[in-house]
Amino acid sequence: MSSSPLNVAIIGMGTVGSGVAKILLNRAEQMTARAGRPIHLKRAVVRDLSRTRDINLPAGVLTDDVESVINDSTIEVVLQLVGGIDPAYDIMLRVLESGKDVITANKALLCEKGELVFQRAKELGRCICFEAAVAGGVPLIETVTQAMTANQIISIEAILNGTSNYILTEMFSHNTSYADAVRTAQEIGYAEADPAMDVDGTDAAQKLGILVQLALGVKVNLDQFLRQGIDSLSLADLQYADELGYTVKLLAVAKLLDGQLEMHAQPTLIRNDNPLAHVEDAYNKIALEGDAVGKVWLSGMGAGQMATASAVVANLIDVAVGRAAITFPRLNLWNSSQNIQILPREDISRRYFLRLNVEDRPHVLADITNVLGNHEISIASLVQHEAPEVDETENYPIVPLVIMTHRTTEGQFQAASRELDALDCIRAPFVRMPVND
Amino acid sequence: MSSSPLNVAIIGMGTVGSGVAKILLNRAEQMTARAGRPIHLKRAVVRDLSRTRDINLPAGVLTDDVESVINDSTIEVVLQLVGGIDPAYDIMLRVLESGKDVITANKALLCEKGELVFQRAKELGRCICFEAAVAGGVPLIETVTQAMTANQIISIEAILNGTSNYILTEMFSHNTSYADAVRTAQEIGYAEADPAMDVDGTDAAQKLGILVQLALGVKVNLDQFLRQGIDSLSLADLQYADELGYTVKLLAVAKLLDGQLEMHAQPTLIRNDNPLAHVEDAYNKIALEGDAVGKVWLSGMGAGQMATASAVVANLIDVAVGRAAITFPRLNLWNSSQNIQILPREDISRRYFLRLNVEDRPHVLADITNVLGNHEISIASLVQHEAPEVDETENYPIVPLVIMTHRTTEGQFQAASRELDALDCIRAPFVRMPVND
Repeated sequence: MSSSPLNVAIIGMGTVGSGVAKILLNRAEQMTARAGRPIHLKRAVVRDLSRTRDINLPAGVLTDDVESVINDSTIEVVLQLVGGIDPAYDIMLRVLESGKDVITANKALLCEKGELVFQRAKELGRCICFEAAVAGGVPLIETVTQAMTANQIISIEAILNGTSNYILTEMFSHNTSYADAVRTAQEIGYAEADPAMDVDGTDAAQKLGILVQLALGVKVNLDQFLRQGIDSLSLADLQYADELGYTVKLLAVAKLLDGQLEMHAQPTLIRNDNPLAHVEDAYNKIALEGDAVGKVWLSGMGAGQMATASAVVANLIDVAVGRAAITFPRLNLWNSSQNIQILPREDISRRYFLRLNVEDRPHVLADITNVLGNHEISIASLVQHEAPEVDETENYPIVPLVIMTHRTTEGQFQAASRELDALDCIRAPFVRMPVND
Repeated sequence: MSSSPLNVAIIGMGTVGSGVAKILLNRAEQMTARAGRPIHLKRAVVRDLSRTRDINLPAGVLTDDVESVINDSTIEVVLQLVGGIDPAYDIMLRVLESGKDVITANKALLCEKGELVFQRAKELGRCICFEAAVAGGVPLIETVTQAMTANQIISIEAILNGTSNYILTEMFSHNTSYADAVRTAQEIGYAEADPAMDVDGTDAAQKLGILVQLALGVKVNLDQFLRQGIDSLSLADLQYADELGYTVKLLAVAKLLDGQLEMHAQPTLIRNDNPLAHVEDAYNKIALEGDAVGKVWLSGMGAGQMATASAVVANLIDVAVGRAAITFPRLNLWNSSQNIQILPREDISRRYFLRLNVEDRPHVLADITNVLGNHEISIASLVQHEAPEVDETENYPIVPLVIMTHRTTEGQFQAASRELDALDCIRAPFVRMPVND
């Protein structure tokens, strides 16, 4: 083994970058043993040098000049730990072109520009590692690309957004509203000041997109599959689901059915006897099914400083010892080799949960069940409790009605849904969620 | 990439060997893509050529001559899928010495002769891969050695024996006796005709031994830690545990406490809100805790033909592409580098569950609680139902008494246990299990 140090730089000393620096500095001996040579943090690039940080870097390491990294030919690996596309995309290309390998946790960049940066890295003989970009500290990328390599992966069902899972857990376990749960999540650092990308399903959908490309070699754009967030849910939805024996999770699903790919990321009712129903707080949980290995479940922290840093440093060791240079060129990523069609969304077949607020008067239930029946949707169960809300401006009291359907197609369900929307006996909110069976 | 085929041989065409052959033959195109060159199954060595098999091998592949593999210099990798030590140990050494890499699922051999075969492989510049030896299709070895490399692993809590877990699940969910559940497990192929190694805790202890060496670099012999099987449990134990809010699992535990290693593999009460309590049938589940990543849970089939074959073939791809040659020499295995002491078993601190059958007469409870009190063991909860068993040969009816203690040491508990054994008011069976908190 060579004992010359491996020079690395971190671009972006936010939460994750600081966590990585802590491991490299505080655990230098262990890192040297694992890498076979010392790992030397030569530069750490920040935007604002004056900001106080929770880590003391050796003199000369901190800089606000990204060029000092790109132009330093002794730096072999860059840990690019900044979010967003701009300027992260340009920086990544320039880092690769300067002959360095890249480790990143930026899933938005991979989702939007992955094809371009991967192509460029392959042309240049460099590698891009991104274990931390999906499910943080959970070894998901490694499992999909290496451990399950003998399999045809036939399904992925995953809770990939820790913020949403925390909010749903908080709402149900503390009987709080969505707004209050978001506030708590922001206070303890699980949600950003603007949590839109987490709670509207974008983050989970981006991660599912990366997983599907890795597992199946299929490139799917975000607008090609159903995506819905938890931001339209109420505590009542979680409570009715529980009454029926289900838990609501933001579930990302991709599965092969007769050679077609069913794919969606939506709040979903999961039966309480399914292991995916039991993951609390900001944890992620993923069920992978391979045609040889059967089902494998992985769970752990999908975000957070040290969990994400742990995945980044594991990738750094992969680069240092040469495993990444072997694995990266073989990844089944952004090269759509397999002839898998996306199942049209109207053909997706599932059961559905509906929560409606309806006028408490004759014929209402008949009107609603007629609409469903006309679209060949049969009712599996129905819950109507006595009126909790009385709106005095209305002619009739308003009562909540919860319906679980038997299996139907998304197409039929949407058609029925639109007709229900037009009924004047139904008041907002009208919540619709699929059921995972 | 070279396109010359990689010649491999399988030694042992039992369940797993046949599963591996199925993947190599039926999925040749996928394997070629993953390995970067064709994988050619050149030989499959069996003891009895006349036996019928559930797979058709190409002409000339099947042989009963192990020498035809060892002496064939064109064979680069041997999948050694036979159990036991003898002759597997000698064969493995000769395979390594003939310049071939080895992939094995034989944990008994690794546990007993691991130090010797690993040393020899390193001297010869060869590698030994064994993902399938612990937890079958669950990517546990890869997670411990690669994904968690930035961590100090601080605890391993694992359900590693699928047979025992199946039997416990069957007993509790179908209200059957231990003997009946063993028979069912044998009928469906989850238990051997002689299930001793599975149900007496040996198999789980061997796997824990391998994990501890990988995770902590500490060599622990089987006689250095507490090992107990499920073969002394009754349905009543599982039912009383459930009444108290716990599930009984054969749990293998290793954790660092102030630099000392607590280690045991025993039937253990696990609180129902712990994810380890929820793993059914023949599945394995492992909770790993790292000081950076926090807790990571992995779960999947720990045995079975295709799940184990999936792990073997993943290792074969690791060898084919060169990852194994990088990873193996760096494994922290059988080279006791870390200065970790084993916590003496009498110092292990836990809560305990006791189920005693006692005479239903005055002073019995006082006698028992006095013994516990004299050893500073306090009682957390106590269940005594009315006498279900009346033994007419006895002077008094016999009633079951279940006690959960507060935390005490194994030393104090054993001392109290011995005194309780000597009380003439206590009848067999007297079941004792630790509680996992």
